[in-house]
Amino acid sequence: MNVTIIGLGLIGGSLGLALRATDADIHVIGWDRTSQTIDAALDRGAIDAGFVVLADAVARADVVVVATPVLAMREVLTAIAPDLKPGAIVTDVASTKADVTHWARELLPAPELFIGGHPMAGSERSGITHARADLFRHAVYCLTPASDTPPHVLATLERLVHLIGARPLQIDPLLHDSSVAAVSHLPFMLSAALVQHTAADERWETMRRLAATGYRDVTRLASGDPVMHRDICLTNAAALRQELKEFAGLLDKLADHLDDPSFLDEFFLTTKQQRDAWLREREER
Amino acid sequence: MNVTIIGLGLIGGSLGLALRATDADIHVIGWDRTSQTIDAALDRGAIDAGFVVLADAVARADVVVVATPVLAMREVLTAIAPDLKPGAIVTDVASTKADVTHWARELLPAPELFIGGHPMAGSERSGITHARADLFRHAVYCLTPASDTPPHVLATLERLVHLIGARPLQIDPLLHDSSVAAVSHLPFMLSAALVQHTAADERWETMRRLAATGYRDVTRLASGDPVMHRDICLTNAAALRQELKEFAGLLDKLADHLDDPSFLDEFFLTTKQQRDAWLREREER
Repeated sequence: MNVTIIGLGLIGGSLGLALRATDADIHVIGWDRTSQTIDAALDRGAIDAGFVVLADAVARADVVVVATPVLAMREVLTAIAPDLKPGAIVTDVASTKADVTHWARELLPAPELFIGGHPMAGSERSGITHARADLFRHAVYCLTPASDTPPHVLATLERLVHLIGARPLQIDPLLHDSSVAAVSHLPFMLSAALVQHTAADERWETMRRLAATGYRDVTRLASGDPVMHRDICLTNAAALRQELKEFAGLLDKLADHLDDPSFLDEFFLTTKQQRDAWLREREER
Repeated sequence: MNVTIIGLGLIGGSLGLALRATDADIHVIGWDRTSQTIDAALDRGAIDAGFVVLADAVARADVVVVATPVLAMREVLTAIAPDLKPGAIVTDVASTKADVTHWARELLPAPELFIGGHPMAGSERSGITHARADLFRHAVYCLTPASDTPPHVLATLERLVHLIGARPLQIDPLLHDSSVAAVSHLPFMLSAALVQHTAADERWETMRRLAATGYRDVTRLASGDPVMHRDICLTNAAALRQELKEFAGLLDKLADHLDDPSFLDEFFLTTKQQRDAWLREREER
C-alpha cells in the first residue's frame, strides 16, 4: 500500500516513522515545500521517498494523509484533486474537523472516499526533528466517517490507526469540534493567556524567578506552533469563543468565593477527585 | 545542629531527606500528629528521631521549620512558643508569607529570630511517601528577613538552603504574596477550574476520551492537596481575587479576537517567545 503524507512536521513525520516501524507492507511517500525538509525526513527514516511537487507525491497513493496546518488544507485539497488515483482514500490530521470535511466534500472528485482524522497526540515541539514513532501509542484517533462512507474506506483507515498503536474513535465533526474546544483548545488559550498576563505585569522580573514547575506545566502549550494555534482559532472560533466566555464567568464566580472555606473545600476536593479519576482511566487504557 | 521539622508531608519530608543527605553535622528531628507518619518518616530516612508531642520535638532545636498547611501554623506557633530554646531560629515553608509573618511576630518570644521561607518546589503528590531528597535542587527558596533580623539568623537559614541544593532569594512578604498569586496560585485555580468546567459539561463523556496530554498538563495542579490550596486562597484572597478578575477580563478580550488572523499571529508568536525565553533562563540556572 502506498501512503502519501503531505506535510512532514511533527505529526506527518511521526506518522511516517510509525508506519515504517510496522511489519506491514506500506510504502511511505512524503511531500513538503522544501527539499531540506524532505532530506531531513529521509535522514530520520520517516519516508521511503519524497517530493516537493504535489502531483508527483500523490500520483501512486492508495491513501493520502494531509498533515499541513488546517488553513493550508483547502489549497492542498484543491491542488491534489486532479492528480488522485481512482479509488484513492484521503484523510487529514487537523485539530478541527468541520471546515476540512466541508472543503473535502466540495473539492475532491470522490468525496465519499474522504474521512477526517485527528490523532489526540502532539507536543509543544514542532517540526520533523521532534517526530517520534511512538507519538500515537495508546492515543485516541478520531475518525469522522459520513453516512455515505464505504465500509472498506473506514476499515482501511482504522487498520492504519491500529498499526501506529492508536485507538480509532468514530465521531461527528461538529461534536468533535465543540468537544476539543473545551479539552484541547481552551487549555492552549489558557496557557498562552497566562504567559501574556504574567509577562506583561510590572512585577514580572520578580515573578519570573518565583515561577516554578506549576507555571511551567500550565504554560507548556504556549510554546506550541503559533500557526497551528492560529488556524485552530480561525476554524473553531464560535465553539472556542463560547468556552472562553463561560470559563471567564467561572473565574469571576470563583474570585467571589476566596474567603469561603466550605466552598473552597468542596471545590478543591471535587476537582481533585474528578481529575484523579480521569487520569486513572487514561492510564488504564 | 538540631533541626526540627514540624509536619512531615511532601515538603517537610523532602527537607528532612535533603538535610540528612548532606555531609553537614545536622540532627533532624520530626514532629507529626500520628506515630504512623513518624514511623514512615523514620523508614524513609527523612528524620533521625520523631515525636508526636510538640514540646518534645522543639525542646533541643536550634532551628525549627514549620511545614504544616498554612492555616495550622498559627496554632503551631502558639504551641511551640513556650518550649523554644533561647536563641532558637524559627522559619516556615508556607506558600503565602504575609499572614504567617504577622503571626510569628505576634506569638513568638523572640520575633526577630523568625524568617519566613518558601521553597518554590512541590508536586501534585502529597505526603511523606512522595518526599524526595532532590525536590529542592536548583529551586528558588524565598526568605523574608525583616529590618531587625540579626545577620547570623539569615546566614544560618541561607546555609541550610544552599545545603539542600536550592538558591536563597530575599523578598518582602507582600511582594512575595502578590507575585506568587500570579505565577503559582492563579495557575492552580486555572487547573481546578478547567476540571470543573469540563467535567460539568454535558459532553464530558465524549470530552474525557478526547482529552490528551495538553489537558493532562494544564490540569495537573488540580490533583494537588485540597487543604493546601484552600489555605492558600484564604491567606492570599485579595491578591488572588485581583489576578482572577484581570485574567477573566483577558479571556473575554481574547474571545472577541478569534476571527482576527493578525491579532492571533501576534498573540501566539509573542507568548511563545516569552514562554520559551523564560524556560531557557530557567534551564540555564
